[in-house]
Amino acid sequence: MNRMMTLVAFLQAQNCSNLPGSWRHPATMLDFTTPEYYQRIARTLEDGKIQLAFFDDRLALPDLYTGHHEAAVGAGVRVVKMDPSTIMMAMGLATQKLGLGTTYSTTYYEPFHVARVFATMDLMLKGRAAWNIVTSLNSAEALNFGHAEHMEHDARYDRADEFMDVVMGHWNTWDDDALILDKGTDQFADASKVHRLDHAGRYFKSRGPFTVPRSPQGHPVLIQAGQSGRGQAFAARWAELVFVIYHNLEAGKQHYAAFKQVVAAAGRDPAQVQVAPACYVIVAESEEAAQAKRAVIEASARPIDALVLISEVLNYDFGSKGYDEPFSDEELAGFSWHGFRERVVKHSGKKNPTVRDFVEVSGRGTIAEHKVFCGTPRSVADQMEEWFTAPACDGFVLAATHMPGAYEDVVRLLVPELQRRGLFQKDYIGSTLRENLGLPIPRAADYHRRAAE
Amino acid sequence: MNRMMTLVAFLQAQNCSNLPGSWRHPATMLDFTTPEYYQRIARTLEDGKIQLAFFDDRLALPDLYTGHHEAAVGAGVRVVKMDPSTIMMAMGLATQKLGLGTTYSTTYYEPFHVARVFATMDLMLKGRAAWNIVTSLNSAEALNFGHAEHMEHDARYDRADEFMDVVMGHWNTWDDDALILDKGTDQFADASKVHRLDHAGRYFKSRGPFTVPRSPQGHPVLIQAGQSGRGQAFAARWAELVFVIYHNLEAGKQHYAAFKQVVAAAGRDPAQVQVAPACYVIVAESEEAAQAKRAVIEASARPIDALVLISEVLNYDFGSKGYDEPFSDEELAGFSWHGFRERVVKHSGKKNPTVRDFVEVSGRGTIAEHKVFCGTPRSVADQMEEWFTAPACDGFVLAATHMPGAYEDVVRLLVPELQRRGLFQKDYIGSTLRENLGLPIPRAADYHRRAAE
Repeated sequence: MNRMMTLVAFLQAQNCSNLPGSWRHPATMLDFTTPEYYQRIARTLEDGKIQLAFFDDRLALPDLYTGHHEAAVGAGVRVVKMDPSTIMMAMGLATQKLGLGTTYSTTYYEPFHVARVFATMDLMLKGRAAWNIVTSLNSAEALNFGHAEHMEHDARYDRADEFMDVVMGHWNTWDDDALILDKGTDQFADASKVHRLDHAGRYFKSRGPFTVPRSPQGHPVLIQAGQSGRGQAFAARWAELVFVIYHNLEAGKQHYAAFKQVVAAAGRDPAQVQVAPACYVIVAESEEAAQAKRAVIEASARPIDALVLISEVLNYDFGSKGYDEPFSDEELAGFSWHGFRERVVKHSGKKNPTVRDFVEVSGRGTIAEHKVFCGTPRSVADQMEEWFTAPACDGFVLAATHMPGAYEDVVRLLVPELQRRGLFQKDYIGSTLRENLGLPIPRAADYHRRAAE
Repeated sequence: MNRMMTLVAFLQAQNCSNLPGSWRHPATMLDFTTPEYYQRIARTLEDGKIQLAFFDDRLALPDLYTGHHEAAVGAGVRVVKMDPSTIMMAMGLATQKLGLGTTYSTTYYEPFHVARVFATMDLMLKGRAAWNIVTSLNSAEALNFGHAEHMEHDARYDRADEFMDVVMGHWNTWDDDALILDKGTDQFADASKVHRLDHAGRYFKSRGPFTVPRSPQGHPVLIQAGQSGRGQAFAARWAELVFVIYHNLEAGKQHYAAFKQVVAAAGRDPAQVQVAPACYVIVAESEEAAQAKRAVIEASARPIDALVLISEVLNYDFGSKGYDEPFSDEELAGFSWHGFRERVVKHSGKKNPTVRDFVEVSGRGTIAEHKVFCGTPRSVADQMEEWFTAPACDGFVLAATHMPGAYEDVVRLLVPELQRRGLFQKDYIGSTLRENLGLPIPRAADYHRRAAE
């Protein structure tokens, strides 16, 4: 069998897609507080045999710019953030095969809770659930959860590792064949196949036994997106699907090869850890139509989008400076994300760039934030095939330029071309997400045998 | 308009109804790990114009009896406990008018999280969500969440009061008319109508602003079930629907009148805080058929059901004693629930009752745990009408003897008789739960005006 692409829709449980200005796009529907908004996307994705739709999450709205939420709320810059697992259920119950995932932070919840929510979703969706594991990094989130400060980077990952030990332990509490359900003998379950966890570690204690039996795919698929060294080590240990950001093919090839080596070094099969970079696809019936679509999309961005989001990622209020006033050396040194600062210095050609330079060079809040594949079905498929076969990836995470149109275009124009080339599945392989991703279904007995070794 | 009954289905996200032996009932379906199990109940309840289905929850399985989960798991005594909000979504998305509620503990979660989950469910269900507020009391739950001990009773309620201040504050962050959604002027929302909470109290800090706009019913309906003095004070302050356990009409009348006075003394309208006792309804086409059904139900109980559940509520391992061995004075004094012990002493006629006396007198794990209304539609309606008009209640919480048959019987036999008498709605009044319960839709502006007073 040919190697096949994994396609993932990158969703937000909010008023815009990844692109903050998407709500202003003329064709975006604005019923984002209703299930219909998400269910129509789900049905479209399932029409296209897309393997997975997954939700990002943030536990706060952005309000660092000007020190107040007024500007962000007025302009609708990622200010609505609903509970994504609730919305994932609305999508899952309107579909039969589409996999559904969501982000849940290891920073603000207890592992027993997260294990139970995802195990239940996986049962109710008959083995179609995935969990995007994140550690939270944002001060506004910490303030909503009663913490003055967010946790230091590496400590967050140590805690996340232990969190995973507890979640995986609970998910393997009930052996695959523990349930008996025999009314004739009164035997509900084989108690010797239900285990207490008795975890007592540095960050967590959780006794068990867990209260949810196994799902048809064993347990939910694990997703991760850390690109730092510590984040990669975490992903290599736990993740089955890894989301990345590559700005060009060359960088992608290098990172892909290096990451697969990290996975192998961690003792896992690199083929069972898929890598998918985020991208925007703008596809139309002709090159001219694609360029015209792109122009409409680009026109939906506003400088306020960039100002709000840059303030957020650099942990600095960009409203405190004049738009064309250069940052001092001292101010620049204080920005928390050094790589981001260096890129603006380099591309602006200025040692002391201005707010305008940051907005214009970074492309934050515009489609330039991710790789853009734009053109006819044939030319977009050519580009994606090049990335896929390089190899720089095992698939793609499709961010949306507008809703639901971006996904309708992908499904009606791009997917048939990828299918024609044998690069993408013509139908779902099975009914669980693991089957549709080509991932093995884990068995509790194997987990216990490995744990005993 | 006549005063109308509120009918509520009392559900469990597990392998049995409130009656642990219900899974052994010959007509109980055993697909409790699938959405179909819950959705068929939801559709039946909606056929019967039932206002609300609500889930109980416990964050652990019972394993105090014999100090191990073996007996409980083998016999299926409340050992599966899935995440009920996930399952509530599966039911809500298969229905249009049925209200749906679930339990969420104030003990193990942050208020920002609970506020966001329920606000999102209320949007996705278009104003049909309710929250059953509980404080957790069980040591096994504490152990799953990494706490050595559960919190002391009154402190739990003080914390719950502050928890409610935060949740209600967040729910009132977005004024009812805050969203503008005008693509022409780029105005997403009126920022002057979106507020930070800035809560810093004894137990919680949460800054806000909240990230979810208002739902069609303002915010979810609040349910509570505390019957202690402190629990009643909490309910009088916050609840809109109160679940109670009355063993007979006389006790119900007294409690109902006293509680409504507590509500009035707290400055709220007693008509807007509805009281509904739990009951089992066994209804059939003839008295003989009802008695025959009752016999089948009673035959599904086993002594292990009572032993597991009594150990749990008294925080004492009933497996450590011989079945016919009397408890010593010292042992009896150590039982955590004094009222329960006194009832067994009184009804057994023994100063030192045995394990057998506790099992047989308490009725724990059998339908005797709640009031049973058994008979023809006419005789059951007579009894319920007597309770309703006494008045001892504003409606009933219907526990199920078996699944889904108990609700099918209620909807097909009892509901038409109640409707004929003008005691129950012939159709849903509106589309939100508040409309169907006759509760007002709260406005954020009123909340802020009261808070400023």
